[in-house]
Amino acid sequence: MAASTQVCRFYMNGRGTFFRSLQKNYFCFRRKFASKKVAKIVPKNTPKKQLATKKEAEDESSFSRLQEDRRKQAERSVLIACPPNITEMKFLKHLSTHGSIENCFFYESFGIYAVVEFSQTHSIDSMLGATIFPSVQNETAVPFKTRLLSLKASDSVLPKTRPSVPCQKLNPIGTKELILKLSQQDTVDKQLYYLLEQHQLTEENIRLRFLVCSLLKDIAAPYFPECVIRLFGSSVNSFGKLGCDLDLFLDLDSVRGRNTKQTRNQLSLEFQMKSTSSERAATQSILSVIAECVDHFGPGCVGVQKILNARCPLVRFSHQPSGFQCDLTTNNRVALKSSEMLHLYGRMDRRVRAMVLSLRCWAQVHGLTNNFPGAWITNFSLTTMIIFFLQRRSPPLIPPLDQLRELAGPRDECIIEGNDCTFVSDISRVKNLDNTETLDHLLQEFFVFYANFPFNQMSINIRKGKEDYKPDSSPLYIQNPFELSQNVSKNVNPTQLERLVTLCQESAWLLNEGWAKQRASTEPSPWGMGALLLPSLSQSIRNKSKKGRVLQPASERFKNLLAFLKTNKAGGSGAAGNAENQKTASSTTSC
Amino acid sequence: MAASTQVCRFYMNGRGTFFRSLQKNYFCFRRKFASKKVAKIVPKNTPKKQLATKKEAEDESSFSRLQEDRRKQAERSVLIACPPNITEMKFLKHLSTHGSIENCFFYESFGIYAVVEFSQTHSIDSMLGATIFPSVQNETAVPFKTRLLSLKASDSVLPKTRPSVPCQKLNPIGTKELILKLSQQDTVDKQLYYLLEQHQLTEENIRLRFLVCSLLKDIAAPYFPECVIRLFGSSVNSFGKLGCDLDLFLDLDSVRGRNTKQTRNQLSLEFQMKSTSSERAATQSILSVIAECVDHFGPGCVGVQKILNARCPLVRFSHQPSGFQCDLTTNNRVALKSSEMLHLYGRMDRRVRAMVLSLRCWAQVHGLTNNFPGAWITNFSLTTMIIFFLQRRSPPLIPPLDQLRELAGPRDECIIEGNDCTFVSDISRVKNLDNTETLDHLLQEFFVFYANFPFNQMSINIRKGKEDYKPDSSPLYIQNPFELSQNVSKNVNPTQLERLVTLCQESAWLLNEGWAKQRASTEPSPWGMGALLLPSLSQSIRNKSKKGRVLQPASERFKNLLAFLKTNKAGGSGAAGNAENQKTASSTTSC
Repeated sequence: MAASTQVCRFYMNGRGTFFRSLQKNYFCFRRKFASKKVAKIVPKNTPKKQLATKKEAEDESSFSRLQEDRRKQAERSVLIACPPNITEMKFLKHLSTHGSIENCFFYESFGIYAVVEFSQTHSIDSMLGATIFPSVQNETAVPFKTRLLSLKASDSVLPKTRPSVPCQKLNPIGTKELILKLSQQDTVDKQLYYLLEQHQLTEENIRLRFLVCSLLKDIAAPYFPECVIRLFGSSVNSFGKLGCDLDLFLDLDSVRGRNTKQTRNQLSLEFQMKSTSSERAATQSILSVIAECVDHFGPGCVGVQKILNARCPLVRFSHQPSGFQCDLTTNNRVALKSSEMLHLYGRMDRRVRAMVLSLRCWAQVHGLTNNFPGAWITNFSLTTMIIFFLQRRSPPLIPPLDQLRELAGPRDECIIEGNDCTFVSDISRVKNLDNTETLDHLLQEFFVFYANFPFNQMSINIRKGKEDYKPDSSPLYIQNPFELSQNVSKNVNPTQLERLVTLCQESAWLLNEGWAKQRASTEPSPWGMGALLLPSLSQSIRNKSKKGRVLQPASERFKNLLAFLKTNKAGGSGAAGNAENQKTASSTTSC
Repeated sequence: MAASTQVCRFYMNGRGTFFRSLQKNYFCFRRKFASKKVAKIVPKNTPKKQLATKKEAEDESSFSRLQEDRRKQAERSVLIACPPNITEMKFLKHLSTHGSIENCFFYESFGIYAVVEFSQTHSIDSMLGATIFPSVQNETAVPFKTRLLSLKASDSVLPKTRPSVPCQKLNPIGTKELILKLSQQDTVDKQLYYLLEQHQLTEENIRLRFLVCSLLKDIAAPYFPECVIRLFGSSVNSFGKLGCDLDLFLDLDSVRGRNTKQTRNQLSLEFQMKSTSSERAATQSILSVIAECVDHFGPGCVGVQKILNARCPLVRFSHQPSGFQCDLTTNNRVALKSSEMLHLYGRMDRRVRAMVLSLRCWAQVHGLTNNFPGAWITNFSLTTMIIFFLQRRSPPLIPPLDQLRELAGPRDECIIEGNDCTFVSDISRVKNLDNTETLDHLLQEFFVFYANFPFNQMSINIRKGKEDYKPDSSPLYIQNPFELSQNVSKNVNPTQLERLVTLCQESAWLLNEGWAKQRASTEPSPWGMGALLLPSLSQSIRNKSKKGRVLQPASERFKNLLAFLKTNKAGGSGAAGNAENQKTASSTTSC
């Protein structure tokens, strides 16, 4: 499903006239295909007046403000399954009877879907008021009204043949195609930026993520009207790859509020509530009920799992119309703050995101990271390692977190459960550092750095930007930047750390050797980042790991790699390689 | 708990001045102890203008209109747990800061509770806006806001000693006391009216029932905002006894609405919904989630049971602050129509309710009816039998249902799932029949009628008001008045029918004999209805039933009964009787 998901996008801002003659209500549109270069985070419809003062202008681009704008955007949006033979004109004409449309795009996922954002929230009310229950299943369906709709058309109203609604992919290209494209670039720098462009979340993908989050609020929140469901993790930290999971948390703080109210006459009214034995039990209770609601009431939500005994209790399910795997937790404010920190680092220098996304791809292709819980390195751990490496350059490319804490203003102060999570939110206060290294060099140095890191003795600490002695015997120790006594990579076992080190050694070697450089050819061999994504690299390590042998860079292993690279050409019928490699490549459709 | 529940009641209608000097906001009250003679169904606050035309005046007293008014009254009400040392003045002064109070009463149930009805709904919003979460359990409670509140007071604000907030019982007197009181009456007519007065639902009890229903809507309905939770059964059919269960159904018809909307341009939007394999599966799914919500989120709701595989799936739970046992179902419109029919019969003649409540007490004391499902005769079956008996008098006391169908106007037409449930709603169209029999005579005749009814051949049919040949071999066949092919007493087995017949025979004999007449004494012996409620009557039958013997009225059995009545005096230390009888009497605290 993921691979076939396609998108087409329209912008309508009230200046065009295309459809004016077709309808009575005000409705204009300007069509524009989205640039795929950078996910546009700042929404188009931010009112000008909010930019009035410098203070407000700074706030405008802060992480929390961006999230808030996205949430409002999503609340004005609906997700509509369309008939296969829908035409854009008919669709937009019909929808615009409910008000001016701000933005609209189509994508394909077991049928054509449209995401429609109205300019005003009341258009949603108007639309839902005119929406009916499907007559065929009136009595056998749960009549819970959400903003996930279906557009139905009588036979005569649409063309018999299926018109090609312009769609663009929501998901990334497969690894095989990616390697081919990368190998056509002439520098590693260009390779990494190409990879960034291909894999970063698009504007549409981000819109869809916030919409699914908003739809989930409609399901999860009827009991807690003031609650917020917040996106955290890859979807918002600027390092998300197309196809990554949706991490959500139900924020009940605004429901509970503050009990500072003073009653003059010393009588006060309190809500009677179901009480539990602990905060954790309350969380489990709430998530358990929400899981039932999602499972029984939530249209398009399938495969609901209650994982309530995990350290951080969660509900996992798939949202079919978007194809997103969703994890819902509660009380995860530190994780949200971590996302904000990553988002800030990602905005400091273009090279940071290119490095992180490329290395996330590299780690995924070689099975260093994994969607399932286990002893694998998590994306967050890996990203922290990359940030640490970039802090350790000379001169540093990005500052340590403690420096960002010092730059913080009074409004940035943030203590969560006793942990100091304060750091600057206004990126303009962070001065540019003088590092001018190329991505080519940084990538090479990253592998060398971790191929030789004294993991047995030292820990990684992005708060100070330098290594510390390890406080315990965990194979990999990465200090949690906010909960300072925690190791974010506590789960990693010696085997997985060993695989990481070995892959770094071999990747460093490959980049350094002639075989990793581009060769002039009409059918380019994998080279540079392309070569690093070849599954053969990890395959040989995996096979050896299974035998329980201690891995060391050995001339024998490098000879095999060279032999593979000589004969293996990315893509095309001429590509060689053994069956096992091809199978691995095709099963990893996207990294 | 039930026996200790007490009530005190205030009316505030804006004409009094008692508290005016104590507060800034408009707030007046007129104190009045409720008459216990008849539950006042017509709410005090019905606007005059709605009585403008005759048509509307008729509608005013219709069953559905009464329900609607009660629902609105409940929506303007809150349930508040009070400190034990609360004073009425402090309480009312504090509450009235949120608006004019229409009605207020106190009752005791594991502490003092108050039911407060405001004149305007916005007072509820004001009050909830000023209500806080209990600080001690802020993080360990489910922050779901309902109208079940607690009033907290600082030490200094209330008197140290507990003032006696005037409370009145919400629950009936126990059987032992009832028998004593009944035996002090000088005619059976007076006995039955006394029993009616003691056991019928009071105004406060009805208010509390509708409030609990409304509070349950707050828990069950967040997903279906347009839904209605309707009370049916004893709570509303005018035959309810104090302490009877709360039967509720979730009516989703107004959510689903009608799909009659025509779209001019032949495109239409439909909600996507979770679909199920059948209507029953949808009902089960909805009730299952609601059970989870009630269990995990509903304050005061305990002992939640999902009984989803029953013929009519239901959720059962106890609402602790009111002491009500609640059964929630969905799609029970025929049952609601049955309640309306009983309500209509109950209003036709005062004797109907006196007969039904007395015989319900009699059946409960002798274990003919039971709160648990089984082969017992249900209250609905018993009531139908009484109605049938009253239809069969000469002249009839009440008309058959078919006659009520003929009197129906166009607005009364009602077809539910193919069943004609039409009957007149305007009682003024039902002409008085000429029956003038006393309750004394009617009660005697009732027992004689069913002691001799040909249950083996004939069925009871209140639609025609005459017996039919049985269509099947069920021991007791009572045609469902709306679902004509159904037997409402299908569950009754031969043993239970035999117990009914025997009890009717013995009750008829007792009423007919001198021992059932009042004897002049300072310590009256049980007689008349008092004698009929003595547990010894059923005890001898139960013991004999266990041995599997066919019961016939036998001189031996009557001799024992006479001996018991001679020595057994209701109430007081002088009352004789064997230990087994006393145990049975004390375990049945109220009938």
